[in-house]
Amino acid sequence: MLIDNLQYANWSSKIFTQMREGGVDAVHVTIAYHENFRETVLNFEKWNSWFEEYPDLIMKGLKAEDIDTARSTGRTAIFFGFQNPSPIEDDIGLVEIVHTLGARFMQLTYNNQSLLATGCYEAEDSGITRMGRQVIKEMNRVGLVVDMSHSADRSTIEAASISERPIAITHANLHEWQPALRNKRHEVVKAVTEAGGMIGFSLYPHHLKDKSECTLESFCEMVARAAELYGVSSLGLGSDLCQDQPDTVVEWMRVGRWSKEIDYGEGSASLPGFPDMPAWFQDNRDFGNIKTGLRAIGFSEEETAAIMGENWYRFYRDNFVPSASG
Amino acid sequence: MLIDNLQYANWSSKIFTQMREGGVDAVHVTIAYHENFRETVLNFEKWNSWFEEYPDLIMKGLKAEDIDTARSTGRTAIFFGFQNPSPIEDDIGLVEIVHTLGARFMQLTYNNQSLLATGCYEAEDSGITRMGRQVIKEMNRVGLVVDMSHSADRSTIEAASISERPIAITHANLHEWQPALRNKRHEVVKAVTEAGGMIGFSLYPHHLKDKSECTLESFCEMVARAAELYGVSSLGLGSDLCQDQPDTVVEWMRVGRWSKEIDYGEGSASLPGFPDMPAWFQDNRDFGNIKTGLRAIGFSEEETAAIMGENWYRFYRDNFVPSASG
Repeated sequence: MLIDNLQYANWSSKIFTQMREGGVDAVHVTIAYHENFRETVLNFEKWNSWFEEYPDLIMKGLKAEDIDTARSTGRTAIFFGFQNPSPIEDDIGLVEIVHTLGARFMQLTYNNQSLLATGCYEAEDSGITRMGRQVIKEMNRVGLVVDMSHSADRSTIEAASISERPIAITHANLHEWQPALRNKRHEVVKAVTEAGGMIGFSLYPHHLKDKSECTLESFCEMVARAAELYGVSSLGLGSDLCQDQPDTVVEWMRVGRWSKEIDYGEGSASLPGFPDMPAWFQDNRDFGNIKTGLRAIGFSEEETAAIMGENWYRFYRDNFVPSASG
Repeated sequence: MLIDNLQYANWSSKIFTQMREGGVDAVHVTIAYHENFRETVLNFEKWNSWFEEYPDLIMKGLKAEDIDTARSTGRTAIFFGFQNPSPIEDDIGLVEIVHTLGARFMQLTYNNQSLLATGCYEAEDSGITRMGRQVIKEMNRVGLVVDMSHSADRSTIEAASISERPIAITHANLHEWQPALRNKRHEVVKAVTEAGGMIGFSLYPHHLKDKSECTLESFCEMVARAAELYGVSSLGLGSDLCQDQPDTVVEWMRVGRWSKEIDYGEGSASLPGFPDMPAWFQDNRDFGNIKTGLRAIGFSEEETAAIMGENWYRFYRDNFVPSASG
């Protein structure tokens, strides 16, 4: 079982074929960064056209059991998520609508303040807003998972407490290992995982120690440290692979439509584009290296299988369906 | 089994309760006349709120088997349809999106020319358009039924021929019985039913002989005539019940946003509003009268059961799912 809980590639038959070559059973793909509802629907439509065009490589994923179907038919199940709540605009009724269309994760913020919470780039973190509390409740009801990957600390800790179902940090690493703005401090990961939530480890170089030069061993040492602190069952992968995207896309991720000035985010004026991926993780065919690295660092076969996909499978099974009371 | 294949009421707990009192197992309800995509989504949202508020009375219907669930749990299954293709705008990708959200019937026109076909109030009927041919093919693929209730004759006959799956006239009567603009001529009903399609008989007074004064016997005589011409298996009900709607709503149905001048449609300057329903069909509790009338006119118990709901059940079962090749 191999599940990657975050990718935003420039999708093509090449990449879908690489998913099959790499034995990737399921991927959570981002379909909105700054899009409003109608624009997000266009992205759902684009995926529908890919499902129609590549029925032997990919299939739409709505529930954990769809991964079993994907495995038995030799395909990769694609699950959808938003990195921003922009698709629901100011309309709580859209939470159920986007879930019906297939959304399964939604970040409450993408770097900036949103209508729901505070992003990790803001100077002040005022926590979960009035609308944010209502939306978390509605997300809990329908089975849309709260993702706080790009949120600020207080907002994340409050979300973990307010949410009646587990939440997720789909793609980030430990701040103590690499003190990047997007990596997560101990108290944040503790709050999320103690509430039954998960963290998916990122392979995006700005989140790695020594960035593009990060070694596989160092990455796996961080995973081992996280296992000591939070337990193996809270850990998974969320590679943040942005394969084949032009540099204009990372600029758009950072600036969207909210600023007239350039913002380099995790990059810099001298390195404004996508950084090079580490040599041991170039694309979907390289997950075997991570598996090997986890075994080498001392994880058992069972623990390695849990981190590589079984934990996300269990999380999907429990959290993508409506709540028992809903 | 009791299925009414067209209603557009001013929905309330009162009406949902009357559905239960009348033993109505399923209703196809209109959720768009002139709405664009985003406005139609607001109507889906409104229904989601009713499903949440009245879980003991109604449930969302997506496939025929949901009617079995509704029956076994004492509820009415609600199926959605559009009287106009305005919800898909000029975007064929929205066909699959609205099907995913729950739409199961879509009229290609509402009285006027649309992007897809010609409506029954136009002076010239130019048939199915270029986009219309593409959209029918896509509707066939995903399982969204072509409804031609408000379309012109040539467009309807062409749609029945172009469509690879049966189409429907969800709510209209025989033109030879009551020569209203909205009632259907022999060659039109013949084309639809010979291609496996169905007609649902309307109880809207403008479609009835003697309008509000129409007798139950006369209505049932028309059904018997249709059975002779097209066979019992092509017949069902589509009452067009617009219970508790204010007269502003029928004006909006007729004029929408397309005209600055008033258009009385089937009404007149002296009778601009909703006409009175016939005494024997006031609301959802009166379907028993029709059943009695059909038996009295000579239909067998089996034939009556087919017309009252079993035919629509079979039609739903065969046509709401993706095509085998899709």
